[in-house]
Amino acid sequence: MKKNIPEPTLRRLSWYLRYLERFKEKGAEVISSKELSLALGLSDAQVRRDLFTLGGFGKRGVGYNVENLYDFLVSFFGLDREQKAILVGCGNLGKALLQYKGFRKRKFIITYAFDVDKRIIGGEIGDVLIEDVNDMKRRVQTNKIMFGVIATPAASAQDIVDRMIDAGVKGILNFAPIRLQVPSGIALTPVDFAIELEWLSYHMHHKVKT
Amino acid sequence: MKKNIPEPTLRRLSWYLRYLERFKEKGAEVISSKELSLALGLSDAQVRRDLFTLGGFGKRGVGYNVENLYDFLVSFFGLDREQKAILVGCGNLGKALLQYKGFRKRKFIITYAFDVDKRIIGGEIGDVLIEDVNDMKRRVQTNKIMFGVIATPAASAQDIVDRMIDAGVKGILNFAPIRLQVPSGIALTPVDFAIELEWLSYHMHHKVKT
Repeated sequence: MKKNIPEPTLRRLSWYLRYLERFKEKGAEVISSKELSLALGLSDAQVRRDLFTLGGFGKRGVGYNVENLYDFLVSFFGLDREQKAILVGCGNLGKALLQYKGFRKRKFIITYAFDVDKRIIGGEIGDVLIEDVNDMKRRVQTNKIMFGVIATPAASAQDIVDRMIDAGVKGILNFAPIRLQVPSGIALTPVDFAIELEWLSYHMHHKVKT
Repeated sequence: MKKNIPEPTLRRLSWYLRYLERFKEKGAEVISSKELSLALGLSDAQVRRDLFTLGGFGKRGVGYNVENLYDFLVSFFGLDREQKAILVGCGNLGKALLQYKGFRKRKFIITYAFDVDKRIIGGEIGDVLIEDVNDMKRRVQTNKIMFGVIATPAASAQDIVDRMIDAGVKGILNFAPIRLQVPSGIALTPVDFAIELEWLSYHMHHKVKT
């Protein structure tokens, strides 16, 4: 398999996965590159190239086995095994994320939560205890946790990410509205709620009569 | 300009916008399709085709004026004017969204917030009053609000979206973890926090030694 798959290819693989999920729910067994390309607005050649990148899936004229391709993509994204995470910042957003079912669906389990605010430390959200952020390093090391979620205010996010990395966290999902610096070898993914706004706004201005 | 631009093209335009924003911050005046294609992992031909779709931007051998292209994309996405929205569901997620600065940065202003819970109606989050959801229709109509944000639990989301549409809302950003049905002519955009997880998970498994 090719290494260093470019970001847009990954995005497309993510769409394939989402579309295959729906297709699988409908009970379909085989899908052609043409069906995938029509559904996603890509060229047929593009879809075949992308799936070839994954290791030569599908046979000319036969199409792709939906179940196999789906399982392959789930495993490609590393979503086939449970992954434990810590979360720092138990304000409104942190609380919402601790209760967010979409993480658990992808086997991403937030096991420990931390905050600096003594008034909320000791409380529980769902079945997760809020602990003092000073206990983070010990928890990460004892439980060999690789993932961290940042839900702090922007001002403290860089300090927290530095401490997470020092503790041993390797992959970080950042919900704080600030760009963070991390050393090479650490995977950092920013989440921006407002990106979807561009879509909505576009569709409102181009498709819907107001 | 071509109508019905397919989703993947829109996604790419969204990346161009984001990249141009960074490029503009650095003070760059001109960008070539080659620079854009390298930065985003697309083919040069793809970038030229996409920007041609927008109305024949750029000149062969000269490149694109960063400022013009940026302004064009901002206006293309309809993000150049203030857009008012209502929000329904003032739990943890709703509160977090009301305080989220990324919306305001894109001139998307949540003006009214609603809930069904009498215990929180009358309270304020930021400078927005939480009102009874039964007042939603009147507020939407009086203020001619076109956008709605759903931050309710999954179980009540469909009922709320129906009521929003009945009130006159045309564009909906759905944060509830459920697929909603809307009539044609209504723009609905689901937001799934966990999509970014696929990326993070991928990078953890393919790039980072653990």
